[in-house]
Amino acid sequence: MIRVAILGATGYTARELLELLLRHPEVEVTALVTRQEDAPHVADVHPTLRNRLDLRLENLAPAEVARRADCVFGCLPHGASAAVISELLAADCRVIDFSADYRLNDPQVYSKWYQVEHPDPERLGKTVYGLPELYREQIRGARLVANPGCYPTAAILALAPLLKEGAISPRGIVIDAKSGVSGAGRSPKPNLHFPECHENLTPYGVGTHRHTPEIDQILSTWAQVKTEVVFTPHLIPMDRGELVTCYAEVAAGKSQEQLLEILRKFYQQEPFVRVVNHLPGTKDVAHTNFCDVTVRVVGSKAIVISVIDNLIKGASGAAVQNFNLVYGLSETTALL
Amino acid sequence: MIRVAILGATGYTARELLELLLRHPEVEVTALVTRQEDAPHVADVHPTLRNRLDLRLENLAPAEVARRADCVFGCLPHGASAAVISELLAADCRVIDFSADYRLNDPQVYSKWYQVEHPDPERLGKTVYGLPELYREQIRGARLVANPGCYPTAAILALAPLLKEGAISPRGIVIDAKSGVSGAGRSPKPNLHFPECHENLTPYGVGTHRHTPEIDQILSTWAQVKTEVVFTPHLIPMDRGELVTCYAEVAAGKSQEQLLEILRKFYQQEPFVRVVNHLPGTKDVAHTNFCDVTVRVVGSKAIVISVIDNLIKGASGAAVQNFNLVYGLSETTALL
Amino acid sequence: MIRVAILGATGYTARELLELLLRHPEVEVTALVTRQEDAPHVADVHPTLRNRLDLRLENLAPAEVARRADCVFGCLPHGASAAVISELLAADCRVIDFSADYRLNDPQVYSKWYQVEHPDPERLGKTVYGLPELYREQIRGARLVANPGCYPTAAILALAPLLKEGAISPRGIVIDAKSGVSGAGRSPKPNLHFPECHENLTPYGVGTHRHTPEIDQILSTWAQVKTEVVFTPHLIPMDRGELVTCYAEVAAGKSQEQLLEILRKFYQQEPFVRVVNHLPGTKDVAHTNFCDVTVRVVGSKAIVISVIDNLIKGASGAAVQNFNLVYGLSETTALL
Amino acid sequence: MIRVAILGATGYTARELLELLLRHPEVEVTALVTRQEDAPHVADVHPTLRNRLDLRLENLAPAEVARRADCVFGCLPHGASAAVISELLAADCRVIDFSADYRLNDPQVYSKWYQVEHPDPERLGKTVYGLPELYREQIRGARLVANPGCYPTAAILALAPLLKEGAISPRGIVIDAKSGVSGAGRSPKPNLHFPECHENLTPYGVGTHRHTPEIDQILSTWAQVKTEVVFTPHLIPMDRGELVTCYAEVAAGKSQEQLLEILRKFYQQEPFVRVVNHLPGTKDVAHTNFCDVTVRVVGSKAIVISVIDNLIKGASGAAVQNFNLVYGLSETTALL
Repeated sequence: MIRVAILGATGYTARELLELLLRHPEVEVTALVTRQEDAPHVADVHPTLRNRLDLRLENLAPAEVARRADCVFGCLPHGASAAVISELLAADCRVIDFSADYRLNDPQVYSKWYQVEHPDPERLGKTVYGLPELYREQIRGARLVANPGCYPTAAILALAPLLKEGAISPRGIVIDAKSGVSGAGRSPKPNLHFPECHENLTPYGVGTHRHTPEIDQILSTWAQVKTEVVFTPHLIPMDRGELVTCYAEVAAGKSQEQLLEILRKFYQQEPFVRVVNHLPGTKDVAHTNFCDVTVRVVGSKAIVISVIDNLIKGASGAAVQNFNLVYGLSETTALL
Repeated sequence: MIRVAILGATGYTARELLELLLRHPEVEVTALVTRQEDAPHVADVHPTLRNRLDLRLENLAPAEVARRADCVFGCLPHGASAAVISELLAADCRVIDFSADYRLNDPQVYSKWYQVEHPDPERLGKTVYGLPELYREQIRGARLVANPGCYPTAAILALAPLLKEGAISPRGIVIDAKSGVSGAGRSPKPNLHFPECHENLTPYGVGTHRHTPEIDQILSTWAQVKTEVVFTPHLIPMDRGELVTCYAEVAAGKSQEQLLEILRKFYQQEPFVRVVNHLPGTKDVAHTNFCDVTVRVVGSKAIVISVIDNLIKGASGAAVQNFNLVYGLSETTALL
Repeated sequence: MIRVAILGATGYTARELLELLLRHPEVEVTALVTRQEDAPHVADVHPTLRNRLDLRLENLAPAEVARRADCVFGCLPHGASAAVISELLAADCRVIDFSADYRLNDPQVYSKWYQVEHPDPERLGKTVYGLPELYREQIRGARLVANPGCYPTAAILALAPLLKEGAISPRGIVIDAKSGVSGAGRSPKPNLHFPECHENLTPYGVGTHRHTPEIDQILSTWAQVKTEVVFTPHLIPMDRGELVTCYAEVAAGKSQEQLLEILRKFYQQEPFVRVVNHLPGTKDVAHTNFCDVTVRVVGSKAIVISVIDNLIKGASGAAVQNFNLVYGLSETTALL
Repeated sequence: MIRVAILGATGYTARELLELLLRHPEVEVTALVTRQEDAPHVADVHPTLRNRLDLRLENLAPAEVARRADCVFGCLPHGASAAVISELLAADCRVIDFSADYRLNDPQVYSKWYQVEHPDPERLGKTVYGLPELYREQIRGARLVANPGCYPTAAILALAPLLKEGAISPRGIVIDAKSGVSGAGRSPKPNLHFPECHENLTPYGVGTHRHTPEIDQILSTWAQVKTEVVFTPHLIPMDRGELVTCYAEVAAGKSQEQLLEILRKFYQQEPFVRVVNHLPGTKDVAHTNFCDVTVRVVGSKAIVISVIDNLIKGASGAAVQNFNLVYGLSETTALL
């Protein structure tokens, strides 16, 4: 059994992760870590888990976490995450980090978008980006995996294969993204108050959302030229689910069928990406680790649409998929 | 023109009140009062009102409010409300109070349920309860009106006529109540966070909700015997709307048709109560000042069902209806 | 491997059943039966199942179903169900029936509430009611199990132990029930159209809902006296989840703590009933086979509250639990 | 008083229209027309209108409608609408048509997108497009007004001023549109069934939605060059509200502030368009006739965002605004 700890165990991604890990035959959850002073039982924090996991949350120092766990899932906010993780790695833990701290290669880009100095800049550029469909081989056996953001997961899975094959232009890409409210986390805020969100639809972070550099970094690699996507997220009055509608110029002469074929080929062996002919909805993948993707050509534009569950394929499911790869287990364990 | 001020102008009831008052031909809104230190423009607090009302919120002392307004609508929390209102009354303002402070007749009952000493106990028992369908004559010309709670409005309109006619038993009444989330106010709280409320349904305040003594006080008057209702509210994943399902023993020999007839007769002249034959839904009265009510007899029980918009008939619409009565205007002004 | 077929495979309960069966290590799904003429692929009917199950739906005669399957889950409407099931039983299949056809003991009660003659009256009164918490021993090895209705599941689990111990009165029980819209099935209807349901809350079937005799039949057994519950369902603007608020007279001298203790004792060994101290919400059990239950005493009334996922514990999860019992497998297989 | 009839009185736009007209001091509603054979009371079709309008729906021939009404609001489907309207016009009625039948100038474009021959091609190109902010003078006194589609209203109000001033490029415009479900009408359909829509987000009609030629026709006029927008609508799990996110290349040297200033100037006298600095949400304009619009510049793109209530400014409110102009009344009557 692999002993597993979770840092930041009170949030929604931690809850979903626990739901998955409780079904994982190779995992024993040994510590749930919180920075809160009181130490509630997990059932009081996550009522769905009552009678399924008998653990209290604990405010543990990294050294103690490392003593208890072989692998740590970090659900801490950016900045807070890297500081703890470098200690855990030094103590020989493996880490799958949900924060943005190890996703970007360039400390300057990080400090520009996150407004803090990176606490562990050495590891930037050396940490694998945990999107198995693109970086499976590097993830196998890794000691640290940077679990991708939810929007980047949906957008990159939609666009990377088409950029790689030169089927769409890397210039002028627009990503119009829509997410359920759980993506904004568990802390109550005025704009996330039920009567404000419900029957409401709002754009936010237009031109300023921190997932932008992450998307550009990965897409640039696959396009082999620097991209500068326009990324516009919107808050949708639903709990979970995410859809991105990506617009790009089609390369001369490429048909819709050719674009679909590129996607089908790229993902034909993938257990969790389904290239579909119809227009997918978020409910098709809700509570699953799937990403459904399709493409339409309208005039000179390719419209690439993908859907994920923001908490599963966009966070905790991806983390378990990475965990399985890190430990050489079947990649779909606990995910189907 | 009657000059009107609103205390506690940032909340949902204040917003709905402004929506109504802006359509009122006899009203000029002269002050929006808040206890917050900054003084935002009303359009930044209530975006729907942009370009319709050009006022900033202000942190004004009661004396200044009284100078500016003939009539004050108080949307302050209980306890805070009475202290200010007694000053306004002394300065010759008329007041329609949304708080619970002047609804109960007995200061002891008030302090038992609200856990504070009443700041103005003299006026308890002398203030009219602002339910026009029951207390129209006393409201006309009143200087202070205690605007009813939302649950009491729905429950009392359902039950009072039947109790008055002895058609149901005053003993063992159960009121199973369901409300949209706006009834819980505008302050973000963990249980009102969108991902917690959405796709969720929760009872709360079972046996302890503060609307209980208010319902009992009024029903006891109409039943001419002390009632002790069991009141169970539930939070429903919708923004607005309220439905109460009331259960009472039918008096011997009374049929469903007779009960319906009692309701029809009682409300036949009422502009805002509609006795219906079908089972009403909250959307039938959403964004209106109507209360739809019906009754079924099943076995020995009468099941009386009523629906209101918790922010309109349950708060701001009732307040405008009371205002119209106080000033001798047509009762439906600004409400149809 | 146990070969399994599903009748009526297009509905929501069939979809949830497939989600569970795909995780079941002892099950092979061999036929998905529909009465529709075309034969769509399961992925086109249930998009979440794409790439997870490669079967087409088929319009198969019972004899062919019996040839292909050891056990059949029947998700057909009442009336249609019994006709097919008697053939399957004759052909030596085991059957777990989601319809109401075998739940009632008395053909006269059946024809009164369902307005049809029962097509297989012989088996009424001899078929086990598939609520494992009450009838576990009779379910083991059964050839036919009548899977309970969703409302009866929630209501009976809340009330049966208290009636058994005489802690509440069997007379005058009120069950105020609230359900998400998926409980109404997959066929579009005017009142289930999104803009009608959303932001709306409606009672329906007051005094006439067909789950009433089913609840009374079981509760009467446990109370050892005939009950006549008043049952009032409400449609809640959410997809899934069900909550019942049950009101009954407390037996003289019984305290809230004593009632809680009766529930705790009754369910202490149960894997899927959690007696809780707090007021549970439907989201606590969403997408699980759990039933959370609690009780409050207010005045002379016990208020017993229970929550389930109407599609899991209220239908497909219960069916899998019954299946496990029928085949002597661990009862929680595929359910945790 | 102007006598008014409504054709197609059972739908959502008819209901919203009645809500507005009942507040209109110059209007008397004299006929509610339906093609259904039975003739229900309006209160049974639109429960919110009970006790406010005592009319039955009627299946009336155009001649009878013309006898009863000075002005007719047509809420019929495309194709069905023009046939009736030409009769009404011949009988000297004025008409405000909600259908698409008189919006397009070119019968060939009409038959390409609507797959029917236009029944009254003569009037195409001679009928005013009822967007008062762009065509106010032509609407005054018109006998026939083509009320715009909801998506075109939001998109054109966002883009036309910027195209007119050459501040954005007319080539390669992308309109990513999101609408609440009421925009799809009142007829139940599988994809509009509550459990399918709720917690779901789906694109539809990508590259094929019939509002596309309408948007292009108007934008081309204002751009003075033929546009070919890419228009991608999405169904959002809410009842009402619509947001469009429009992407266009910014003209060289134009700043975000300059674009905002163009919008502010263009709309400075408009009673129903509010140019805002913040990112607007649909709830800011829900149940109102307002359109809130803003713009951001990100890289080389202008992102123009506008929100409307699809049933008010996107349909019935616009119709009343047009009605007021046609009859020389104050444009905001019944709308504020």
